[in-house]
Amino acid sequence: MAKRVGRYTIQMEKMPSINGFAAVCGKKEAEGPLGQYFDYTFDDTTLGEDSWEKAESQLQTESVNKALEKAGIIASEVDYIFAGDLLNQCISSTFGLRSLDIPFLGQYGACSTMAQTLALSSIMVETGVANNCIAVTSSHFCSAERQFRFPLEYGGQRTPTAQWTVTGSGAIVVGSGKGPFVSAVTIGRMIDLGIKDANNMGAAMAPAAASTLMDFFNDTSTGPENYDLILTGDLGEVGSKLLLELLERENIDIAGKHSDCGLLIYHQKEQDVHAGGSGCGCSASVLCSVILNKLRQGELENVLFMATGALMSPTSSQQGESIPSVAHLIYLKRNM
Amino acid sequence: MAKRVGRYTIQMEKMPSINGFAAVCGKKEAEGPLGQYFDYTFDDTTLGEDSWEKAESQLQTESVNKALEKAGIIASEVDYIFAGDLLNQCISSTFGLRSLDIPFLGQYGACSTMAQTLALSSIMVETGVANNCIAVTSSHFCSAERQFRFPLEYGGQRTPTAQWTVTGSGAIVVGSGKGPFVSAVTIGRMIDLGIKDANNMGAAMAPAAASTLMDFFNDTSTGPENYDLILTGDLGEVGSKLLLELLERENIDIAGKHSDCGLLIYHQKEQDVHAGGSGCGCSASVLCSVILNKLRQGELENVLFMATGALMSPTSSQQGESIPSVAHLIYLKRNM
Repeated sequence: MAKRVGRYTIQMEKMPSINGFAAVCGKKEAEGPLGQYFDYTFDDTTLGEDSWEKAESQLQTESVNKALEKAGIIASEVDYIFAGDLLNQCISSTFGLRSLDIPFLGQYGACSTMAQTLALSSIMVETGVANNCIAVTSSHFCSAERQFRFPLEYGGQRTPTAQWTVTGSGAIVVGSGKGPFVSAVTIGRMIDLGIKDANNMGAAMAPAAASTLMDFFNDTSTGPENYDLILTGDLGEVGSKLLLELLERENIDIAGKHSDCGLLIYHQKEQDVHAGGSGCGCSASVLCSVILNKLRQGELENVLFMATGALMSPTSSQQGESIPSVAHLIYLKRNM
Repeated sequence: MAKRVGRYTIQMEKMPSINGFAAVCGKKEAEGPLGQYFDYTFDDTTLGEDSWEKAESQLQTESVNKALEKAGIIASEVDYIFAGDLLNQCISSTFGLRSLDIPFLGQYGACSTMAQTLALSSIMVETGVANNCIAVTSSHFCSAERQFRFPLEYGGQRTPTAQWTVTGSGAIVVGSGKGPFVSAVTIGRMIDLGIKDANNMGAAMAPAAASTLMDFFNDTSTGPENYDLILTGDLGEVGSKLLLELLERENIDIAGKHSDCGLLIYHQKEQDVHAGGSGCGCSASVLCSVILNKLRQGELENVLFMATGALMSPTSSQQGESIPSVAHLIYLKRNM
């Protein structure tokens, strides 16, 4: 049974198993270094739909259906679906998943959503409240850009610290099985150090990542040496450097262990993505492709997956607010 | 320990206890029939803040602090806070709660959020994953109106089926204690019967309420006669009538047991609210005042609280989409 370890961490004892996972992405992601790992990629950014929002919904439909297929179960065997995204009122999730007829719990964690949905799915399975849960999220460059920044037609210039929203979705089916397993979960607190630049999300989110990682290390009396990989969601180039700096001040060196999904998904220079990838779909599609594959095949054994979210809106930024951030951590293990 | 009953319902065995609850509202709500029951009401719709969005955040801060005080605990004793609201990217919750330093799980269930956050808080406490959780949500007439409909200065005409967004917040501290207790929870599936009129949310949400209530009755082999009160969130006048009609077709008569928070909170005619109150803060502030007080004092013994959410956005409506809805049910008992 799940038990609390330290102040912030939940240790799983039955160990929820990741029985199916899938990642679907767009054209730019297909052309990136992880292209071969995605279950599907779409050349047409609209996926044949008549708006980018509907296209993003379709990404969730596709990733969930593929994850179910890979888990060998059907929708009616799933007890709860935890889903969220970046769009106002989380409409990608709603419209992408409404036909599944699965009890639905909408989540909002901005780019931390993959970790948040996976954490809650794992807790529900671990405690016996559910037999099977789905965790899913998505983002789409075009729907995000026009909602958060400028109309695409405007062709706005991007600052060097800006990141590129991933067009993609990742879905995970959690149940009982042969792994990879969710071994522990640390839910983050909101951290706000006063960053106000909405074109520098990495800087806003790095302190939340540092806080949650330190909470986990403290709670479990472990350190970077105990893990193969410490994978952040979408800190990008700026945020990753800051995370390392913040941890160094606390005498924690993760340099040899750290990767960031936002730095893995694109050929950064050639694909002109500035500080890296971002969006809920960034960590979701990286986790649900290359990372979980390597965990399943034994190329990785112990991974800390930590997705970060910037909990702002265009309105809060226009009103002069800083950017509170949050990071949730999932400890993934190949074996029990 | 929590166990599943039937397909959709979770029966609590340890029974999470509502140890503190608070409701804070605005001026119009103070002038309504429940005015005396709210913990605080504010004459100034800005609460002294410089925007309505910040005012709404402040409503959450106030309700959480009051609920903590009434539960006799402090923020650092709370393991998780489940919070959400209607604003884009759920900024009322983020900015209202960031200073609490409590592990934060943002929720999006539109006007079903009070039931959703209370359901998840109860599950966490029941399963021993948490000792104390907070469930909180809010809405604000002015922030909702300008985000979902028109600038307030425009003075748009309202249709007869339109509802009035409640300015208010409700917060609940769930832990171990003397009750009232959460006895069972039914998480709803999304239902979409094709309603597209964003000024008729009641009609869009009624089928979801009917679906979840029937799930609960089926799962528990009970009927309306087993409960003192069946309280929906904000179906308003139109949706309430439709709910009764939909259930009558299934030979379920809840007429003598049903109330709707949207019909309780205002003097409907005198206060010119058309089809009734709405918004996350509607069911939250009614539940967290008069209803939980009556449960505590024994005037009510068995209550089914069912908040409904319309999972649309202005963008989805503009793109011609219908309105998927969801309803989550909480079975509240005075005694174990």
